[in-house]
Amino acid sequence: MTGLFVSFEGVDGVGKTTQVERLRAYLQERGRAVLVTREPGGTPLGTALRQLLLYNVASDAADIAPRAEALIFAADRAQHVAETIRPALERGEVVITDRYLDSSLAYQAGGRELTAAEIRNLSMWATDSLLPKRTYLLDMDPAASHARLQHAEDRMESAGNDFQHRTRQAFLDLATAEPDRFRVIDANQSINDVWEQIRTDIDTLLQGGAQ
Amino acid sequence: MTGLFVSFEGVDGVGKTTQVERLRAYLQERGRAVLVTREPGGTPLGTALRQLLLYNVASDAADIAPRAEALIFAADRAQHVAETIRPALERGEVVITDRYLDSSLAYQAGGRELTAAEIRNLSMWATDSLLPKRTYLLDMDPAASHARLQHAEDRMESAGNDFQHRTRQAFLDLATAEPDRFRVIDANQSINDVWEQIRTDIDTLLQGGAQ
Repeated sequence: MTGLFVSFEGVDGVGKTTQVERLRAYLQERGRAVLVTREPGGTPLGTALRQLLLYNVASDAADIAPRAEALIFAADRAQHVAETIRPALERGEVVITDRYLDSSLAYQAGGRELTAAEIRNLSMWATDSLLPKRTYLLDMDPAASHARLQHAEDRMESAGNDFQHRTRQAFLDLATAEPDRFRVIDANQSINDVWEQIRTDIDTLLQGGAQ
Repeated sequence: MTGLFVSFEGVDGVGKTTQVERLRAYLQERGRAVLVTREPGGTPLGTALRQLLLYNVASDAADIAPRAEALIFAADRAQHVAETIRPALERGEVVITDRYLDSSLAYQAGGRELTAAEIRNLSMWATDSLLPKRTYLLDMDPAASHARLQHAEDRMESAGNDFQHRTRQAFLDLATAEPDRFRVIDANQSINDVWEQIRTDIDTLLQGGAQ
């Protein structure tokens, strides 16, 4: 594959969407074909799977079993990779995804019956071992990212402060485990300063033969 | 777990449903609590997942990726085990399922990009390694089972004779690989003769401490 695969990770409210759009514009100005995508919901099948989970949870039906839920998330990712991400990489494009594997690990693994290793193995099988060349983790104290959120009550906000701190720490631990893939960026900085760090890194990546 | 888990396998038309009902009646007459279930469609979530696959395949959307499809089948089974099968076994019941893991292996593994070992690993993870104590494989030449089928054109019939022969052989290979779990029964025999073989085996199983 000749393309470049980049993911953005971090809890809600850290500014991922803004930086994804800056990166897209920057690369397109330089003549690169860019595909921006996101998880969950990168494909029609994935969206339908997620709706199924939401519907079931809301109904009187039995709870969704943790393994069934993890398999459905993995199916969403498998379809996303096969239908969207791999074809674009094979066309030589830059693929930028707002959340990927690491979000599953940080959000699903905390406080479930399943281990992070199980979730990771499942996801690696689902994607036929496709990992991003680079993952930007936008890191910020949860209290600060919470204040940035414009939208009303959501999962993050209702799940409480402990959950947010655990999720942040889970992301940081993932970054520590794979220092070559991750760049941890302090998202308390201004949008321009965050972007400047990403831009410098992307320039290096592109010069380094990743195209 | 104190219950007994039994599955019936074989291609369509070999008489699984008839034998499942005989076994249910026989055990209930002996005072056992029996749960009869089936795959696909053992739970509301599983049914919804299957409908999603059918809908997507029928629509103009992109094809479902083989890995996504396998993960969705595995999610169906995970929910079936967690919601239906395990609770009944824990209550000490006999659980009889019309199709289980082996059908996935025999039907999915043939002519796909995925290996039988991959499908099996996925299914074993989905079920937390729950295998039947006994699997009755009703075996018959596909030409004979085809003639028995009452219902109109279905997947088996439209997929052609080669597919049916390969599927039969796949079931037989699975039985050879796990002789302790499988009993292969010649389904060309009369219903009574098939049942007599199952009854004899079940009596032995129940006397043997499997309850």
